Amino acid sequence: MDYSKGNIGRVFTVRIDTGEDLLRELEGIATKEEIKSAVFTLLGAVAKVNLVVGPKENAIPPETMWVNHTEPYEVIGVGNIFMEEGTPKIHLHTAAGRGDNVNVGCLRGESAAFMVLEVFIMEINGMEAMRAFDAAKGFAPISFGKN
Amino acid sequence: MDYSKGNIGRVFTVRIDTGEDLLRELEGIATKEEIKSAVFTLLGAVAKVNLVVGPKENAIPPETMWVNHTEPYEVIGVGNIFMEEGTPKIHLHTAAGRGDNVNVGCLRGESAAFMVLEVFIMEINGMEAMRAFDAAKGFAPISFGKN
Amino acid sequence: MDYSKGNIGRVFTVRIDTGEDLLRELEGIATKEEIKSAVFTLLGAVAKVNLVVGPKENAIPPETMWVNHTEPYEVIGVGNIFMEEGTPKIHLHTAAGRGDNVNVGCLRGESAAFMVLEVFIMEINGMEAMRAFDAAKGFAPISFGKN
Repeated sequence: MDYSKGNIGRVFTVRIDTGEDLLRELEGIATKEEIKSAVFTLLGAVAKVNLVVGPKENAIPPETMWVNHTEPYEVIGVGNIFMEEGTPKIHLHTAAGRGDNVNVGCLRGESAAFMVLEVFIMEINGMEAMRAFDAAKGFAPISFGKN
Repeated sequence: MDYSKGNIGRVFTVRIDTGEDLLRELEGIATKEEIKSAVFTLLGAVAKVNLVVGPKENAIPPETMWVNHTEPYEVIGVGNIFMEEGTPKIHLHTAAGRGDNVNVGCLRGESAAFMVLEVFIMEINGMEAMRAFDAAKGFAPISFGKN
Repeated sequence: MDYSKGNIGRVFTVRIDTGEDLLRELEGIATKEEIKSAVFTLLGAVAKVNLVVGPKENAIPPETMWVNHTEPYEVIGVGNIFMEEGTPKIHLHTAAGRGDNVNVGCLRGESAAFMVLEVFIMEINGMEAMRAFDAAKGFAPISFGKN
């Protein structure tokens, strides 16, 4: 366990429209606005989404299981933005449902909004945090600078 | 895609008790406290809930699919408050589960808390945003003023 | 219904690593940092988790239904921290999924992170709130001081 303390900076209210790609839009805003550390929540729907819904086994690095939906799903999500090798990286988990079909997983790659996705990004100032890839773990954990 | 920048204002910690209606209580607080732009998260349980769990087809305006639960469901939710035609409008998506039955959808109409719903409303200041109904889209997207 | 107004204080970005216990780590941070009122969101995965997934009947105090997972599940969560009898108490609801198996419930007792859990704690200042056990209700609702 490790942690760092900061305070809330700017807050971005984002509307993503039908057909737009969620991660690409968020990366674009983060780049343009120079958002380096942030947490966000979202709600809305997607017409296309790819989710990692767990590792096949309880082993690290994990072999990932995927679901790929191409029909509209309602979603809620919790995510964050941190820098990795000089570019803003989005980490986003969502619960996605259509009727009685529901998944919870890590949203990656291409997606398309359906009607609307509403995202609320809260910048975190006053601390230093970034992601660095760890080959043994198979992902890039957040590490903290001094504060 | 469109977005606006602001900053966090007041934070409201809300406890909604058994039998109380979630959207009506939130609308009441928003009206009384003159909350015009806000994001919120919630956790708790409901004894009654109606959710839109997707459009029947991938078409806009959507024809909605509903689930209507009258047994207690555990919930988490992400929502927001913006003004539409002079009154505060709640947009709320929740993941709701009871045993192995789970739905994700847009909570609308009547509901009843079971034991407790705890809601954390964060006001967003320093930006101008409101909802305006768009007949072609079948809903009221957030639009932003200048800031 | 009752509520109180405050404002955001410190923000804690927390990384919980493989095998660590979620509630124990959060309680430790809350104690060390003297966090008395806070809301948090989280995302990540757990290798072990126990969730209350509803009451058996629509009755208060509730008789709880549980799921106990010992395989990795992807999660999102919304929770809070308030003082109860002098110690910080965590209330956390999560949506947890593995493939097509999904639950939503109140995370209690022991758990173990898988790879990582990322938690964002926002302290709420300027209000007085705490939990007090109510035997008739079977839980400890938040009550508010004057502000």
